Amino acid sequence: MKIGDLEKSLNLPGIGQEMHGLIAKLYPICRSITGNGVRETLAILRTLIPLEVKEVPSGTQVFDWTVPKEWNIKDAYIKNDQGERIVDFRESNLHVVSYSVPVRARMHLDELKGHIFTLPEHPDWIPYRTSYYTENWGFCLSHNQWLELGDGEYEVCIDSSLQPGYLTYGEYYLRGEQPDEVLISCHICHPSLCNDNLSGVVLVAFMAKYLSQLPLRYSYRFLFIPGTIGSITWLSLNEALVSRIKHGLVIAGIGDQGRSTYKKSRRGDAEIDRAVSHVLKHSGGDYEVMDFIPYGYDERQFCSPGFNLPVGSFMRTPHGQYPEYHTSADDLSFVQPQYVADSFGKCLSILNILENNTTYLSQNPKCEPQLGKRGLYRAIGGSKDVKLSELAMLWVLNLSDGDHTLLDIADRSSLEFDLIKDASDILLQSGLLREVSQ
Amino acid sequence: MKIGDLEKSLNLPGIGQEMHGLIAKLYPICRSITGNGVRETLAILRTLIPLEVKEVPSGTQVFDWTVPKEWNIKDAYIKNDQGERIVDFRESNLHVVSYSVPVRARMHLDELKGHIFTLPEHPDWIPYRTSYYTENWGFCLSHNQWLELGDGEYEVCIDSSLQPGYLTYGEYYLRGEQPDEVLISCHICHPSLCNDNLSGVVLVAFMAKYLSQLPLRYSYRFLFIPGTIGSITWLSLNEALVSRIKHGLVIAGIGDQGRSTYKKSRRGDAEIDRAVSHVLKHSGGDYEVMDFIPYGYDERQFCSPGFNLPVGSFMRTPHGQYPEYHTSADDLSFVQPQYVADSFGKCLSILNILENNTTYLSQNPKCEPQLGKRGLYRAIGGSKDVKLSELAMLWVLNLSDGDHTLLDIADRSSLEFDLIKDASDILLQSGLLREVSQ
Amino acid sequence: MKIGDLEKSLNLPGIGQEMHGLIAKLYPICRSITGNGVRETLAILRTLIPLEVKEVPSGTQVFDWTVPKEWNIKDAYIKNDQGERIVDFRESNLHVVSYSVPVRARMHLDELKGHIFTLPEHPDWIPYRTSYYTENWGFCLSHNQWLELGDGEYEVCIDSSLQPGYLTYGEYYLRGEQPDEVLISCHICHPSLCNDNLSGVVLVAFMAKYLSQLPLRYSYRFLFIPGTIGSITWLSLNEALVSRIKHGLVIAGIGDQGRSTYKKSRRGDAEIDRAVSHVLKHSGGDYEVMDFIPYGYDERQFCSPGFNLPVGSFMRTPHGQYPEYHTSADDLSFVQPQYVADSFGKCLSILNILENNTTYLSQNPKCEPQLGKRGLYRAIGGSKDVKLSELAMLWVLNLSDGDHTLLDIADRSSLEFDLIKDASDILLQSGLLREVSQ
Repeated sequence: MKIGDLEKSLNLPGIGQEMHGLIAKLYPICRSITGNGVRETLAILRTLIPLEVKEVPSGTQVFDWTVPKEWNIKDAYIKNDQGERIVDFRESNLHVVSYSVPVRARMHLDELKGHIFTLPEHPDWIPYRTSYYTENWGFCLSHNQWLELGDGEYEVCIDSSLQPGYLTYGEYYLRGEQPDEVLISCHICHPSLCNDNLSGVVLVAFMAKYLSQLPLRYSYRFLFIPGTIGSITWLSLNEALVSRIKHGLVIAGIGDQGRSTYKKSRRGDAEIDRAVSHVLKHSGGDYEVMDFIPYGYDERQFCSPGFNLPVGSFMRTPHGQYPEYHTSADDLSFVQPQYVADSFGKCLSILNILENNTTYLSQNPKCEPQLGKRGLYRAIGGSKDVKLSELAMLWVLNLSDGDHTLLDIADRSSLEFDLIKDASDILLQSGLLREVSQ
Repeated sequence: MKIGDLEKSLNLPGIGQEMHGLIAKLYPICRSITGNGVRETLAILRTLIPLEVKEVPSGTQVFDWTVPKEWNIKDAYIKNDQGERIVDFRESNLHVVSYSVPVRARMHLDELKGHIFTLPEHPDWIPYRTSYYTENWGFCLSHNQWLELGDGEYEVCIDSSLQPGYLTYGEYYLRGEQPDEVLISCHICHPSLCNDNLSGVVLVAFMAKYLSQLPLRYSYRFLFIPGTIGSITWLSLNEALVSRIKHGLVIAGIGDQGRSTYKKSRRGDAEIDRAVSHVLKHSGGDYEVMDFIPYGYDERQFCSPGFNLPVGSFMRTPHGQYPEYHTSADDLSFVQPQYVADSFGKCLSILNILENNTTYLSQNPKCEPQLGKRGLYRAIGGSKDVKLSELAMLWVLNLSDGDHTLLDIADRSSLEFDLIKDASDILLQSGLLREVSQ
Repeated sequence: MKIGDLEKSLNLPGIGQEMHGLIAKLYPICRSITGNGVRETLAILRTLIPLEVKEVPSGTQVFDWTVPKEWNIKDAYIKNDQGERIVDFRESNLHVVSYSVPVRARMHLDELKGHIFTLPEHPDWIPYRTSYYTENWGFCLSHNQWLELGDGEYEVCIDSSLQPGYLTYGEYYLRGEQPDEVLISCHICHPSLCNDNLSGVVLVAFMAKYLSQLPLRYSYRFLFIPGTIGSITWLSLNEALVSRIKHGLVIAGIGDQGRSTYKKSRRGDAEIDRAVSHVLKHSGGDYEVMDFIPYGYDERQFCSPGFNLPVGSFMRTPHGQYPEYHTSADDLSFVQPQYVADSFGKCLSILNILENNTTYLSQNPKCEPQLGKRGLYRAIGGSKDVKLSELAMLWVLNLSDGDHTLLDIADRSSLEFDLIKDASDILLQSGLLREVSQ
């Protein structure tokens, strides 16, 4: 079975439910850019795919950066003067600023205030905040919680550790016919946040699982890495591999109800850019294709000028453009099975194009070949309608001059890639095309 | 007299009437892709222009195709059990599927049904159908006629012949100053259908007649050929000539009341594409310029990848986009003199551009030359208006750097080609320009 | 102080008043393409900037043109039969057609008529007319004045001289770090007309004055020349200098209330074209960017095909598109301080881009450098907003691959040039960028 056939045979609604189930399983874990939350997450993903878990020691120099100390946390709270936990890490791991150094102290509200983060515009939501590269500590509270805190003294405890250890990430390599690679990357460093980016993590894991059952033209490399430092670390340790990457996607935030969005690679006209644009254009739904900007997820690193890889970013509503972004409202109800499934289907369509985007040479370039005598054209002429399948064959024959890929032909004809691909298969079987070796 | 002057001196309404008269004369003939109908048609055209009639034997291999047997027909009918001709070829040659094999039989309605074609959505019209490359027979009826046929037995007769013979076409070559050629092609294979393509046949014949009276820069080749097999045959027999073709037009369906439409060559930016676009843009009327698609008329063959000739297609409403297309409603009232004349005028304007699209070099490239001392510029300065003729001279001088043709200058300035051409003539006479040899 | 800082420190409204004051001082002088009016004008400008006054003898051959005789005028009038001056040069120097030959005669209205110019559509305005290159004479009257003239005999006097002399122009050269030049040109040949072009003359003089106080990357050449013949003369005498001109602006008509307009150079994509477009796009106001046309001011000569210099034209409402153009209504009230000042500010912004449009190379091209450890990035992460200054740094780092100037980066990011420039300064100080030698 090929990827295009797989796509047609899938029960997408059911897969959406499965994916949502896995998101739910990963949701409670307290992840950060290092630490046991990441290890626990990767262990669960290993039940789906045999990914390798890599451990890079703290202090390792990776380009301009240094792998940080490993952070772990057991508990955290703020107690009032009655000794009641009025803010409790056990209720939500968002309550603690990620990478908070250990603290155990009593302090007045005035002093505590400088370590508190709230969202006045959404008073019921807990914000998500981090302090990876500056040693600090803090608590994130709903604004209503904060308003209830009376003037007085509080007991503050963050039972965390920040010590030399490892940066942990997962990598899964699927060998295809060619050593040329497709890179699929997601970030696994966020705690209890569903869209950003458990939705992406789960989509990539499912993609890897399904692709592993198929014959593949390209080799695929799936990365489950902490944001920024993870991609920098991977690139630093794997510079020699980079030239193999022919196409890539960073996948994040694919489970909300917003329209599909694609952010192009820095190159702007890479094959991946054109493949995703084609799929979205023919999807029938609303969508957006944005130009590259050097802000966002790990495409920032893959598209840095020293690499300039053809890697775009696939998402639904872009990060920062929905109010639930980086708050406790990005929860299991914000992400829904049908949207996760829709994103998954589109990703398969994108990979289907990459896998099948061949260049052919017409073996009959002077005038059209006679399709009728091969049974490929209607016998009765004169009616005003032409079948799409016949039109697709004429397009493939007309543009198979060695300079046009099937995607070029699909785009120029405004016909869907699958139709062009099916036409080329028929023509190839009839001996009217020959594949151009690349 | 040059072509631009001819255009201005013509009585277009009168020519439209003449052209319509010739369409009417050709209308009754039963043409197909081979046979005596074509010969009869060419004989009538020879009263206007001394075209050569070429005969290519059946069985000749032309690229992937074979010249088919010659088809001729004397009579055809369906008789009811009273012996009355209820469908009669003598009333309309559309009643018989073109290339029907001979048949003489009695059969029940049930059996006959598989050989009947009607248009339920236009119950009074007879459709036009063909079966050139699959031996078959059939009748085309108005849907109302069909509904009147009672259940019973019918006598069916098609008195046709399908035998080794010839494919017949007409060719007229007009020698100009240069061996470089303009190819003008039309299809002559349709029976009693006026817009498609007697209108095109007659326009090409008139164009040939008028051009034959003028001094010409290019040589012109006019083809009157059966669709598809005709262009394939011509290309196959004349491959050595093909490199001379610098511009070309396939002309079809130019007599209906729809707006003028141009379908670009496969190249998309050929000089013919730009010349036609220029004429339509400045025509003052509504028009459409479409990108190439590999479906349509003989431009499919001229633009096949092995030739990729700069040949576009000039028409009014595109084939298949008007309900009368390939039906008995494409008759003498569907095509009107003023539309045929309008199309003819536009074709002359297009050829005028090709004939005059020269590249000049300003002999005074540093600063403007002083036009005033040559009597080419107004004496009193200061008023806010500039004459178009002065503006045209400034454009020609500014862009005559050897890299811009007059059409380039017309397009960049948004001025009409004739204005730019007139300005260049004046400047050339004043010694301010020199023609660039190409 | 650099140009960008100057711009921020200026009191533009005050400068607008000063500029308008200088326009008022120059207004009464009767200028033409040669003569004492030009000398008087340049003498006043020399109170601001030490420009050189050049004198080119009549009869000098300059490309296809000849420097004309020098024209001067003392007085002119039409007297009625009571000996009353009913048209008086002392009331408005527009009353005499510029370059009128001397005349002293009595004539009937009928004969006089052929020498009278009026504007019937604006009966109170006096038109401005010239006859530089055809010896003639004439009077310009308001149409109402003309209608009052009874049938009778008139005494006509133009006390002018047209004799071998000089073409006079002003030139001011400011040496910068580089020999590469920016050419700033304006025409000084119009009599009592404010927008066209005292506004341009004064803007250029002020620009020269302010730039002369600053350290400059480019050298600047300011030309105060008569229209057409002045630029032709300068180009003819300075052909060897022309290759140094890297950017240029012709400045005219910058004081009316219309929106800012930029006419691109003939090249269309020169750095000056992109710099002006950037400034106008980010100005917050309405504006227009037009393609080059070979009609207008001295850009016609600078952009002639033998030079093709990157010189555009900066103005407000284009010449000929406002009714007051070349009439007595283009007076001191038509031009207003705030518009003159606004144009001046925009010109400084344009020059600021040219001066600072450097190309850098990121010293850290593989992945982003860690801005946080250099104090250049916020310490607390997770919030949805990114500061513009941080985004600007990311853009500069991402595109500083040696192929993008700061203007390229500003345009691609849609951020304002100053923001990009400030970001690049910070990154340069941090050692993250190195200037590419050009």
